[in-house]
Amino acid sequence: MQPLDPAIAAAARQAFAAIVGADHVFFNEEDQLSYQDKFAVDDALHHPAGAVAPATVEEIQAILKVARERKLPLWPISRGKNLGYGGSAPLLAGSVILDLSRMRKIDYDEANGTVLLEPGVSFYDLYDFLKSKGMKHWLSVPGNSWGSVLGNALDRGVGYTPYGEHTTKICGIEAVMADGMVVRTGMGALDGAPTWQLYKFGFGPSWDQMFVQSNFGIVTKMGLWLMPAPESLMGMDIEFERPEDLGPLVDALAPLRREGLLQQSPTIGNWLRAAATLTTRGEWTDKPGALSDEVIAAIRKKFNVGWWGVSLRLYGREDMNKAAYAVLEREMGKLKPMSLRPTTWKTGEPIEATGWTGTPLTFPMQNANWHGGRGGHIGFSPILPQSGKAALAQFQRTYACYKEFGMDYQASFAFGERHLINVNAVLLDKDDPAMMKRVDPFLKRLIADAKAQGYGEYRTHLDYMDAVADTYDFNRGALAKLNRTVKDALDPQGIIAPGKSGIWPTSMMGAKA
Amino acid sequence: MQPLDPAIAAAARQAFAAIVGADHVFFNEEDQLSYQDKFAVDDALHHPAGAVAPATVEEIQAILKVARERKLPLWPISRGKNLGYGGSAPLLAGSVILDLSRMRKIDYDEANGTVLLEPGVSFYDLYDFLKSKGMKHWLSVPGNSWGSVLGNALDRGVGYTPYGEHTTKICGIEAVMADGMVVRTGMGALDGAPTWQLYKFGFGPSWDQMFVQSNFGIVTKMGLWLMPAPESLMGMDIEFERPEDLGPLVDALAPLRREGLLQQSPTIGNWLRAAATLTTRGEWTDKPGALSDEVIAAIRKKFNVGWWGVSLRLYGREDMNKAAYAVLEREMGKLKPMSLRPTTWKTGEPIEATGWTGTPLTFPMQNANWHGGRGGHIGFSPILPQSGKAALAQFQRTYACYKEFGMDYQASFAFGERHLINVNAVLLDKDDPAMMKRVDPFLKRLIADAKAQGYGEYRTHLDYMDAVADTYDFNRGALAKLNRTVKDALDPQGIIAPGKSGIWPTSMMGAKA
Repeated sequence: MQPLDPAIAAAARQAFAAIVGADHVFFNEEDQLSYQDKFAVDDALHHPAGAVAPATVEEIQAILKVARERKLPLWPISRGKNLGYGGSAPLLAGSVILDLSRMRKIDYDEANGTVLLEPGVSFYDLYDFLKSKGMKHWLSVPGNSWGSVLGNALDRGVGYTPYGEHTTKICGIEAVMADGMVVRTGMGALDGAPTWQLYKFGFGPSWDQMFVQSNFGIVTKMGLWLMPAPESLMGMDIEFERPEDLGPLVDALAPLRREGLLQQSPTIGNWLRAAATLTTRGEWTDKPGALSDEVIAAIRKKFNVGWWGVSLRLYGREDMNKAAYAVLEREMGKLKPMSLRPTTWKTGEPIEATGWTGTPLTFPMQNANWHGGRGGHIGFSPILPQSGKAALAQFQRTYACYKEFGMDYQASFAFGERHLINVNAVLLDKDDPAMMKRVDPFLKRLIADAKAQGYGEYRTHLDYMDAVADTYDFNRGALAKLNRTVKDALDPQGIIAPGKSGIWPTSMMGAKA
Repeated sequence: MQPLDPAIAAAARQAFAAIVGADHVFFNEEDQLSYQDKFAVDDALHHPAGAVAPATVEEIQAILKVARERKLPLWPISRGKNLGYGGSAPLLAGSVILDLSRMRKIDYDEANGTVLLEPGVSFYDLYDFLKSKGMKHWLSVPGNSWGSVLGNALDRGVGYTPYGEHTTKICGIEAVMADGMVVRTGMGALDGAPTWQLYKFGFGPSWDQMFVQSNFGIVTKMGLWLMPAPESLMGMDIEFERPEDLGPLVDALAPLRREGLLQQSPTIGNWLRAAATLTTRGEWTDKPGALSDEVIAAIRKKFNVGWWGVSLRLYGREDMNKAAYAVLEREMGKLKPMSLRPTTWKTGEPIEATGWTGTPLTFPMQNANWHGGRGGHIGFSPILPQSGKAALAQFQRTYACYKEFGMDYQASFAFGERHLINVNAVLLDKDDPAMMKRVDPFLKRLIADAKAQGYGEYRTHLDYMDAVADTYDFNRGALAKLNRTVKDALDPQGIIAPGKSGIWPTSMMGAKA
């Protein structure tokens, strides 16, 4: 990417201050630092020129007017916690961050179990709010819950409950388009409709997913469905001894997920989970390169975990959960797991603060400290079929690649209703220059290896948005052409998040990698 | 609408014949008749100039080239059975029907429970196909199953099973754009991906819903998820005595639907259902005007039905269904229904040929004979919140309107996960000129009455597409402007289905009503 001249943004600073007040414009050096990607492999690539933090739709419209006049790209963030994928940093260095974290309104429809949220509402905000209303609905939270509920759903983040595929729970969006027009999707397009958060589609084409992982508008409100608090929560935590147990486990869980007996989407994770958050690498070894089988064995012994582990949870009526649990127990028993720990909860009992109960949590972030230096992680997340054979082969190829590049393996296979996401959190040490040099070739190798199998990423770091978009190559990139045609029609100057998900207007194709 | 000069289309006839062969071009008078809207209120409004029936994507591309050169609008149909909403007729008279019913390929992924379908695959085709493969997956069929599976999902048709909101089961689309470019959405955009029918979103914005109820492309392939055959099917058919029982019934079912205990979406229908398909009006009365309370009482006595009836069904494991059934029995018992008939089925037992088992059916179409003349029905389908109070008020206002206009009331309240659709099938007699004169003012009244409550239609007849689109009026029609901007970018000449869902390119705004 060719960075912008930061002077372009600096010149707009006064105009922004006139709109939002000087207190909400951030162009000093420490401000710029605070919006950078903390986990960046190459810090310089994505430096923002500054940030402006509006509080209203009208202020956003005024900021857009300034940006259009000056051909200045804005990079909207909700709370900027898309960790592992770029955080609050813009793709194009020299862009101005449009920080929406001051917009924190929550409208709650308790009868129907929906909320209408502004971008700045965090999982903690919404959790506290729902708690104050008696917790009649549960949240679905991602592994690191610092971020925005709206922003997470817009980046297709996932959580632990039956409502865990957050993007599928979006119901109605308000967005400000590049030309300043405010549009509401679905039933929100009908003035006075009481059904904006109740029916997703409205009349004619539905546009909610147009605003997801994209740059066609600035989302200022989003409807989201909430899960009614269940009567009972039952399940089991299961550990498996051998790497090759992954295959049969995937094949056993997939039909249960597809038939809907499992409504929540289980995640099969490897042995590093606990160790990476509760210990540092130096406690286990001083050897470089991927962890040896001996160290892996020591880690597994200490935390009493298998090569793989998975947690299954059932939500709903107690009698139904008991019937479903019997099926799970039978099917999982056939796999001869290393251990199987049942878990059960019923309304009225004290509740565990875990992702399974929709409680926001941040401890998984501790894995940034694994290497001991200024740490971080970067995501690699291809989409696979729900096939044990495919999952095992993906693990084996990827794990060999980790070893070749001397990286420690932390990965999971997360179920959707009919797909698997192989989520890799590649752990970094920014104070290890030799390692940092290996990261980019390693990620590029993983992307190319996945593409060779027909696998594409569902989400990627800023550094790889063009590369991943290029793997979506059917009919010489027809989908990219469609994206660009729509971008040209709605935002020809590329004011909103140019380059997001590989989408550039024609006028900025020169900025593409 | 200003009809096109049919000479424009006639001139293209030879060019179309050169592409698809003379056998697949239909411009004679009887051909034109066969593509008209059989239930049309004003026949002349939507006469096609003719039809062309391609068998391949390449033929569609060649037809589009001819159409672009001649500025000739095409009206794509799958099988043209969108009965009650216009059938196979084009919105703009003089358009050429692009009849896709010859394209009938089915790709079945038995392991994952998905199909990739061409537009001409009917519910009967797919049913027969799945039967030949051992019926490991069940269909979800609409009340009249003559039509296309793909076309039904694209018009947001609904069915009876947990997979009944068909548009939500779409997973991946192939479409030919107006300029001839073939695009594949989701994972289909990645050449060689085995996950096109497994993950809906791909990378970046997702466009499946862009092609639903719209005119941005010609859909030539659609992925669809199928329900794994359940072990058990249990439920109950319940009748309720009084009109005002509707309110408590909606309020009792809504939380069960939202919590997911009911995964299928029940439809509450009135007393006319059986009578309209099994008898004609003349058997009951010779009086004009809406049916009297005495006739309603006689109909109800004969068929032993309530003012309202509803069927609830549970799909899945037998033990879980039994536990859920106990809850339904308790909750429905509280409402003191007129009758409650349990129903139960288990794998291995003979299966009933009903919508609940995903069996295609056409008998509901018999209601077109209700009045005895050349009959038909026209749909009116506003979206409501799941509130007993709102549903009852909607019924009362609408029923008064039916009486005022002298029409017989056939309506239902169909649950979605968080919405209700008040589906009205207004029964017509095309041989009753006095009645036919009342239909248009009646429909316009219903649309205006719904809009006054904040209710908009989810689907409408060709005659009302502009009127309904106009009710989606937030911010002076911002959504319509977005639709038009995209239409202008993708199909500036309006080659594909101009006017569908009220979407016209700027160049054709003069043709709008």
